[in-house]
Amino acid sequence: MSVTVTLPDGSELAVEAGSTVEDVAYEIGPGLGRDTVAGVVDGEFVAKEHPIEGDVEIEIVTDGSDEYVDALRHTAAHVFAQALQRLHPDAKLTIGPWTDDGFYYDVTGVDLDEADLEEISAEAEEIIEADVPIERVEMSREEAFEYYEDNPFKRDILEEEVVGEDPVSFYEQAEFRDLCRGPHVESTGEIGGFALLEISGAYWRGTEDNEMLTRVYGTAFPSESELEEFLERREQAKERDHRKIGREMDLFSVPDHAPGCPHYHPNGMTIRRELEEYIREQNDELGYEEVRTPELNKAELWKPTGHYETFTEQGEMFAWEQESPGTSEGEGTEYGLKPMNCANHAYIFDQQIRSYRDLPVRFSEFGNVYRNEQSGELSGLLRVRGMTQDDGHAFIRPDQIEREITETLRVIEEIYTEFDLEVIYKLETKGETAVGSDEVWSEATEALRESLENEGLDYDVEEGEAAFYGPKIGLDARDTLGREWTIGTVQLDFNIPERLDLTYTGEDNEEHRPVMVHRALLGSFERFMGVMIEHFNGNFPTWLAPEQVRILPISDDNVAYAEEVKDELSEFRVGIEDRSWTIGKKIQTAHDDRVPYMLIVGGNEEEAGTVSVRDRFERERDDVSPVEFRDHLGSEVGQKRTEPDFLE
Amino acid sequence: MSVTVTLPDGSELAVEAGSTVEDVAYEIGPGLGRDTVAGVVDGEFVAKEHPIEGDVEIEIVTDGSDEYVDALRHTAAHVFAQALQRLHPDAKLTIGPWTDDGFYYDVTGVDLDEADLEEISAEAEEIIEADVPIERVEMSREEAFEYYEDNPFKRDILEEEVVGEDPVSFYEQAEFRDLCRGPHVESTGEIGGFALLEISGAYWRGTEDNEMLTRVYGTAFPSESELEEFLERREQAKERDHRKIGREMDLFSVPDHAPGCPHYHPNGMTIRRELEEYIREQNDELGYEEVRTPELNKAELWKPTGHYETFTEQGEMFAWEQESPGTSEGEGTEYGLKPMNCANHAYIFDQQIRSYRDLPVRFSEFGNVYRNEQSGELSGLLRVRGMTQDDGHAFIRPDQIEREITETLRVIEEIYTEFDLEVIYKLETKGETAVGSDEVWSEATEALRESLENEGLDYDVEEGEAAFYGPKIGLDARDTLGREWTIGTVQLDFNIPERLDLTYTGEDNEEHRPVMVHRALLGSFERFMGVMIEHFNGNFPTWLAPEQVRILPISDDNVAYAEEVKDELSEFRVGIEDRSWTIGKKIQTAHDDRVPYMLIVGGNEEEAGTVSVRDRFERERDDVSPVEFRDHLGSEVGQKRTEPDFLE
Repeated sequence: MSVTVTLPDGSELAVEAGSTVEDVAYEIGPGLGRDTVAGVVDGEFVAKEHPIEGDVEIEIVTDGSDEYVDALRHTAAHVFAQALQRLHPDAKLTIGPWTDDGFYYDVTGVDLDEADLEEISAEAEEIIEADVPIERVEMSREEAFEYYEDNPFKRDILEEEVVGEDPVSFYEQAEFRDLCRGPHVESTGEIGGFALLEISGAYWRGTEDNEMLTRVYGTAFPSESELEEFLERREQAKERDHRKIGREMDLFSVPDHAPGCPHYHPNGMTIRRELEEYIREQNDELGYEEVRTPELNKAELWKPTGHYETFTEQGEMFAWEQESPGTSEGEGTEYGLKPMNCANHAYIFDQQIRSYRDLPVRFSEFGNVYRNEQSGELSGLLRVRGMTQDDGHAFIRPDQIEREITETLRVIEEIYTEFDLEVIYKLETKGETAVGSDEVWSEATEALRESLENEGLDYDVEEGEAAFYGPKIGLDARDTLGREWTIGTVQLDFNIPERLDLTYTGEDNEEHRPVMVHRALLGSFERFMGVMIEHFNGNFPTWLAPEQVRILPISDDNVAYAEEVKDELSEFRVGIEDRSWTIGKKIQTAHDDRVPYMLIVGGNEEEAGTVSVRDRFERERDDVSPVEFRDHLGSEVGQKRTEPDFLE
Repeated sequence: MSVTVTLPDGSELAVEAGSTVEDVAYEIGPGLGRDTVAGVVDGEFVAKEHPIEGDVEIEIVTDGSDEYVDALRHTAAHVFAQALQRLHPDAKLTIGPWTDDGFYYDVTGVDLDEADLEEISAEAEEIIEADVPIERVEMSREEAFEYYEDNPFKRDILEEEVVGEDPVSFYEQAEFRDLCRGPHVESTGEIGGFALLEISGAYWRGTEDNEMLTRVYGTAFPSESELEEFLERREQAKERDHRKIGREMDLFSVPDHAPGCPHYHPNGMTIRRELEEYIREQNDELGYEEVRTPELNKAELWKPTGHYETFTEQGEMFAWEQESPGTSEGEGTEYGLKPMNCANHAYIFDQQIRSYRDLPVRFSEFGNVYRNEQSGELSGLLRVRGMTQDDGHAFIRPDQIEREITETLRVIEEIYTEFDLEVIYKLETKGETAVGSDEVWSEATEALRESLENEGLDYDVEEGEAAFYGPKIGLDARDTLGREWTIGTVQLDFNIPERLDLTYTGEDNEEHRPVMVHRALLGSFERFMGVMIEHFNGNFPTWLAPEQVRILPISDDNVAYAEEVKDELSEFRVGIEDRSWTIGKKIQTAHDDRVPYMLIVGGNEEEAGTVSVRDRFERERDDVSPVEFRDHLGSEVGQKRTEPDFLE
């Protein structure tokens, strides 16, 4: 029997059912056949041995493909495992997948430290040096269970994941053999650069009830130079880790008593207040009216919109049966912490009769939402449980979509330019579970596309990726590590207005259904601040810096004059370093604290009524009058310039 | 046997054990004996028949005493019950106490409406007219149970509250008899004014599991004129009810899905934001640094301070076992919503080593706290479950107490003067459960007293009323109904620093214990806004008014000019009434919406480039230049003047 495979260029090829990906590649050409590492079949990354049983779309992965590195890292995980078992024969393997920037392997039955990693690395390098060929082999299910007699984890995988397959697929390199679907590269020698990075813990299947395993992270690249570049970037990123800088600058903390719920210390709160004020200005410009709704609501609030189901299914909802004081045990009402603000805003919209002339009606809120993310996922400000979204919902007429979205995008673009931040726009279109007619979706999607093009923005189209309720423009910021963080978003929603029966009175005096726009300009203050800290390496633009200027008296005698200068700068955040330190130590500390400007004042300055200005780039200028400096600072801060630029 | 009674003037009297309050009064003098209505024995309000069995402090209540009105209202409750039983013999009585401004009686077995209340009132007036004498009588417990054969509520009281008393006390007036400890006045004719006010529902013993009863509220006064004055004040208060004005001005709502958790609509949020900004200025002036801590914390946070125990005992804590995603059923950690912010602030203080030179360290937060108040207690913004406190904690050295408190009181006084608000200061001193030595308490209490006196503030001393952790200055605002609402507070706390082992390094290089000051300037934004709405009757000072100016074009032709005028006033909150209404209706609507200023613009104004100004007191002035008006508005708003005063 013959099946049809469709190639990336749209051309079709008829092959025998049961042909492998590699067979298809050889059909196309012997050269491609030889270079084949793996394949992508109907979107799934598979081994080159994967059989084609029906009509499919296929892409051949060679070492020129993006996916090649994934296969290479998958092989690197096996190399690690092989080296581990040579040195620690009692270690039990569990799972070892590739990731976006490397691989990990979860193991148990062995206690590893940094020194062990070095030994294992050395062993792995030998395996790579030996250029061991990698073979796919098959075993019957029965043999496989026997093979893993002593490894309950692999047996669990056979039972739960490799359901119904017989024989099952293994990959083998010399004495090492691992239950695995592939894909892999042809031999260990293809790995050009290999490194083990760190040890951490992980629960088996990510469930806290299960055994804690040892997770070893590593990475691999086709060449040594790519690895070195990666390690250098990683080192820089560690230096810039927002948690590290957060501690150094005393910005925030996430205590044990509140996992995922950051506490803002005064310095962090100063930055947040500046951001809040800035976003309020943008909301004003966009015609949003601020509202405020409580964190605590009855669970019934989120049921009609379908959010309750979605969030509880994911286990992400903080919800519980709450007894009222004076009721007996167990007779409670289900309460929850809001995971989003839309239901409360829709309620406020619905409190008034709205006319077509009133629309758009726009509500903004700095809404505190809570989502019960897994504790292993939490990380500083970037992955949290409690966050404040700079949320907003506009209730608009269908004819207002394009204008509303264009205006919103214009402001978003302005904001990200202000922060020198690289943003990737993604247009997400209708998926399979969508509600609403094709016609409405297509009009709305076109409106989003038009808006992106009106603003001249580059964007990727992610077909079928939209949430079920409407098409969306997603905004990702790229951080120094190259990680992409979802920040802002602009979404259309046909679902909530329908489900909550929201209406406005049209010019025809009939009831009509508004469209709802969900949008967040920054996303959440937490994540945005986390990204900002790393983006600026803590060297915040002067308008955001917790301490904008520090005055450094050369001796204690100059403290009084320092106070005078501070008074001149009363509209800014100015500190005086009045500890009895050498001026060198004072300067060093101000640098460490990332203060944009230092004003050094000694006897000469006091006599002349001037200051010596020094910025965090170590640029200096003497004999500056405090008034001149103040005027400059006013314009630098007022215009939100990103670098201290009095001295250039 | 003889016992010693101490009279209010400190003099002592020996009387026979078993003498009644009335006997004591006759001992003092036959006139006082005859006038005696009741007594206060060791702080408890009792009937004149109450026997004295040991050494006590005693106060005789006559119709000149404050407590006389309480006894009169207690009698009025019986008069209501007597009238009810005459007209509705099947009605069952439960409890009928006096209250601060009247009485209520909870009844069942009868369905009452407004018309019934009128009939019952008429019957009650006859009972009063008949001047029926009131007698205390006694029955054995057994007889009492028989008497209430058909009334399970009264039997329940006999079982649960009148434990071990035999005989038990009843009061009788003509055919009516009620289980009652008194006190009462001598005869029904002493009631000068009597009114039944409203019907509501109440659970037996305040517990939602129990039967819902009918609660009838009423009041009584010694004279008709006092009643009339009360009813008039009550009517005014109803007009000013913040929930009514809140709806009229679209300020806020408290939806069914979030009992006790107000939602701020745009107009209410505008007022709140102004208040927030104002309080931030005050906090800056006082040297507070703003922080932010999450609503959600593990319950363990509140255990060391003793707050967990206190709040859970009162059933006021929102706390629950929360499973992490990926753990099995029931294996949770106890989480809760913070009922106060102090533990989080103490945590932040403790994150750094603090030196004596750093103190005071002051943290402020607009902290969102939740307390599970009984649903029957909730009322608009004044009694809520979710609120934002304008909280602040200062960590100070013991030698800084007086200065810190004086400064805080100075700012508090300024604030309340700004709002024309009558505030009652109360100094609460050491009670029986206090922690800390007498010496520390006495010094701290003296420091509070000194601070009040430094500021020349009148204050009441409430002996023994302080919380266990330190002495306190309480601030009550008196509203139009004469109700007193706790708003701000200034408290010293020796407990938390001790329990959490907070320290600072002294000049002697040793560790010392700081004192913690808890203070809230407004209390909570919710309650303060509720009080403000009633205090100003919705006529907010211009700086707080959601809409400060409304421009009223006389005809549609003048709308373009109205826009020009609005541009001139761009720094204020200005609306244009552009619906095609008569100018009369436009003015009326602006009055109804309580807008401080209306600017009327027609052909004449447009030609002359002027406006006609009208304020909410119906004062008017023509031919005003927009610039003159703008300048005035700037100074009125900037100085936070409480009334529109452009026209005087």
